[in-house]
Amino acid sequence: MPIHTHTYENGLTLAAEPLGSRESAAFNLLVPVGAAYDPPELTGLSMICCELTLRGSGSRDSRKFVEDLERLGVDTGESVSGSHTTYGGAMLAENLLPALGIFADLVQRPHLPQSELEAVRQGVIQELRAIEDEPAHKTLLELRRDFYGEPWGRPSQGSMSGLEAASIANVRDHYQRHFRAAGAVLGVAGKLDWPQVRDAVGKMFGSWQGSAAPEPIDKPQAPRQRHITHEMSQTQIGIAWPCLPYRHPDYFQAWGAINVLSGGMSSRLFMEVREKRGLCYSVHASCHTLRDRGCVLCHAGTTAERAQETLDVTLFEVHRLTQGIEASELQRLKARMKSALILQEESSSARSSAIARDWYHLGRCRTLDEVGSLVDGLSCDSVNAYLEANPPRDFTFVTLGPQPLEVPHAVS
Amino acid sequence: MPIHTHTYENGLTLAAEPLGSRESAAFNLLVPVGAAYDPPELTGLSMICCELTLRGSGSRDSRKFVEDLERLGVDTGESVSGSHTTYGGAMLAENLLPALGIFADLVQRPHLPQSELEAVRQGVIQELRAIEDEPAHKTLLELRRDFYGEPWGRPSQGSMSGLEAASIANVRDHYQRHFRAAGAVLGVAGKLDWPQVRDAVGKMFGSWQGSAAPEPIDKPQAPRQRHITHEMSQTQIGIAWPCLPYRHPDYFQAWGAINVLSGGMSSRLFMEVREKRGLCYSVHASCHTLRDRGCVLCHAGTTAERAQETLDVTLFEVHRLTQGIEASELQRLKARMKSALILQEESSSARSSAIARDWYHLGRCRTLDEVGSLVDGLSCDSVNAYLEANPPRDFTFVTLGPQPLEVPHAVS
Repeated sequence: MPIHTHTYENGLTLAAEPLGSRESAAFNLLVPVGAAYDPPELTGLSMICCELTLRGSGSRDSRKFVEDLERLGVDTGESVSGSHTTYGGAMLAENLLPALGIFADLVQRPHLPQSELEAVRQGVIQELRAIEDEPAHKTLLELRRDFYGEPWGRPSQGSMSGLEAASIANVRDHYQRHFRAAGAVLGVAGKLDWPQVRDAVGKMFGSWQGSAAPEPIDKPQAPRQRHITHEMSQTQIGIAWPCLPYRHPDYFQAWGAINVLSGGMSSRLFMEVREKRGLCYSVHASCHTLRDRGCVLCHAGTTAERAQETLDVTLFEVHRLTQGIEASELQRLKARMKSALILQEESSSARSSAIARDWYHLGRCRTLDEVGSLVDGLSCDSVNAYLEANPPRDFTFVTLGPQPLEVPHAVS
Repeated sequence: MPIHTHTYENGLTLAAEPLGSRESAAFNLLVPVGAAYDPPELTGLSMICCELTLRGSGSRDSRKFVEDLERLGVDTGESVSGSHTTYGGAMLAENLLPALGIFADLVQRPHLPQSELEAVRQGVIQELRAIEDEPAHKTLLELRRDFYGEPWGRPSQGSMSGLEAASIANVRDHYQRHFRAAGAVLGVAGKLDWPQVRDAVGKMFGSWQGSAAPEPIDKPQAPRQRHITHEMSQTQIGIAWPCLPYRHPDYFQAWGAINVLSGGMSSRLFMEVREKRGLCYSVHASCHTLRDRGCVLCHAGTTAERAQETLDVTLFEVHRLTQGIEASELQRLKARMKSALILQEESSSARSSAIARDWYHLGRCRTLDEVGSLVDGLSCDSVNAYLEANPPRDFTFVTLGPQPLEVPHAVS
């Protein structure tokens, strides 16, 4: 199926993928503001702003907002990343347009009520504090902070001081400055009629204004190594190194290599660290991308006494990638992907999110057929040439546990 | 669509739901052995046995097993509960039968190699230790342990002493005794041809033998209250109370009440604890079912200083259920469910798992239409009559954090 796109006069882009024979539809609305846009003394402000937009908009107060969405049977979710505030929903296809109408109110006419600021602030503070008790989650957040630096490495939940300092005037100013149509993307997928959706979205979101705000200034971080001492049963290991962003023409070469390292049950990390040695329950590496930079994020959680061996074996496998991947590994990767793409095609939510994300990264949307062709086009030669030119290096390490580990020649 | 079922001579039941216009298919194989069947001095044995069945079977060694599955693009997963060892997979429809052939080898002809026992044991030990660093997860496991008692309240990962004591002879004996066709259920859903699947499964699994082993002896636990002292940022609160099992004719009355308490953004717990007071980031209650008993499991994680208020507000809302639910609450619940059922129908994996579970609990499978009718049939009168006759009581409490909470009249 083709993916339709339309950019309205105000700068909002609609991307729509009709999926045959569904009864459902889903949307994903990317508003171009996230944690990287928070003022440095108010980190967490985007998160507070996002939560407060859910507390009434247009003719609805907080209560009517959730009740109307539930009457339409919309399964919603919202999130804040460095670059975006995202609202998503899945529902019966017949309720897509009414649901979008509710979110059109949300982004254009939120009340941002002072009376609910305290409850929202306390909720985000609870979330920030909860991370302290989730060592794997905390390790990955700190790893991203150290790898990307300011402001792209910030956790969305911000900091206690930032959350405590945010006033209602700060939230409203943040909304005014950043909740804008220019650069926003609405992805929809499922059972839908393109001309009808295009016209309805134009009417509902047409009066949304605001031009692009300046991009945050990127202050990249040099590779570094950090241990966070924490009395606990396990030691968490985080390793990051530079990788191509999604928009780069060679991205799929890098992605292919990382999938051989850690993409299935027969992947090298899974076999060597978990299956053969039983060193840890979970070990995983995957590509993470901003628009202009990317990295590999690798994580393993293990007992303190097995942590050094886990780190050593993991690093050995990461370096061994430069000796090349094998034809049988690539063949299995292609089979896994073929299946995964078909399964993704059966999920309206996954598709609405993927095409919105594509637009942000590429300025266009890839069909699943196109993604399939890119994966099919990989060869051992092409992946190995990439690995030879771009061996894993410049590692950033974050470890969390009772004692530090030896990181041999960590920062090369 | 109708759901086909067939019970073979050896006692294996196949349940199949064809889902129109899919390219995918999924299966869920329930083998009737889980943690409740572990010998008391060898808790965790079912988990070790499950992991070891993945290490080679029939003509495949451990390596070829994962490689063959990946060549077929099968996304697999396995798990152990109190009652079952479950193997699942999702894939292109054309690969369903070859994938089932691999799992037919797994359950009938596993190698259970001694050479891999140590790595498997260490992996499960890592998993058990990891739970110590996941306070929310640990609280729910301990809550189930206290509510259900021995042996149904056991965590699948068992105990350190049980895992360390398990020998290869124990594993093989456990397999011989419990990996049997009688009582096993294979659910498949997606694009499939019923007569073809029925005949193929009969050939592949036809020589699987073994008759039903005796059921574990249930030793229910009296309601109790326990605090686990743990220096951490948060306090975890777990509350359980008796509820009907899934097979009970009034189950949906109980389910409806708990969904009003905690089933959507407008649910009472979400609104009162999270939205209005910002007391915690997550609060949740849901029905949990064994075949013959059930309970409500309720969990909240919050900072130590707000924990007492969170517990008080949560208990207040639980007790307030007996004053009855309102028509608007039930109406929103029905709208949420209508949408959720349609979304479930679009997932082959979800359906293959649901129909296998239905067979275990009911001895028959419910279509989504039937589930829809049961939900539609709920009325305020019927739910409120249930609540009047069965008010929440006999609470079991588990709290985890720096200091204990006051539990007023906890054990009534």
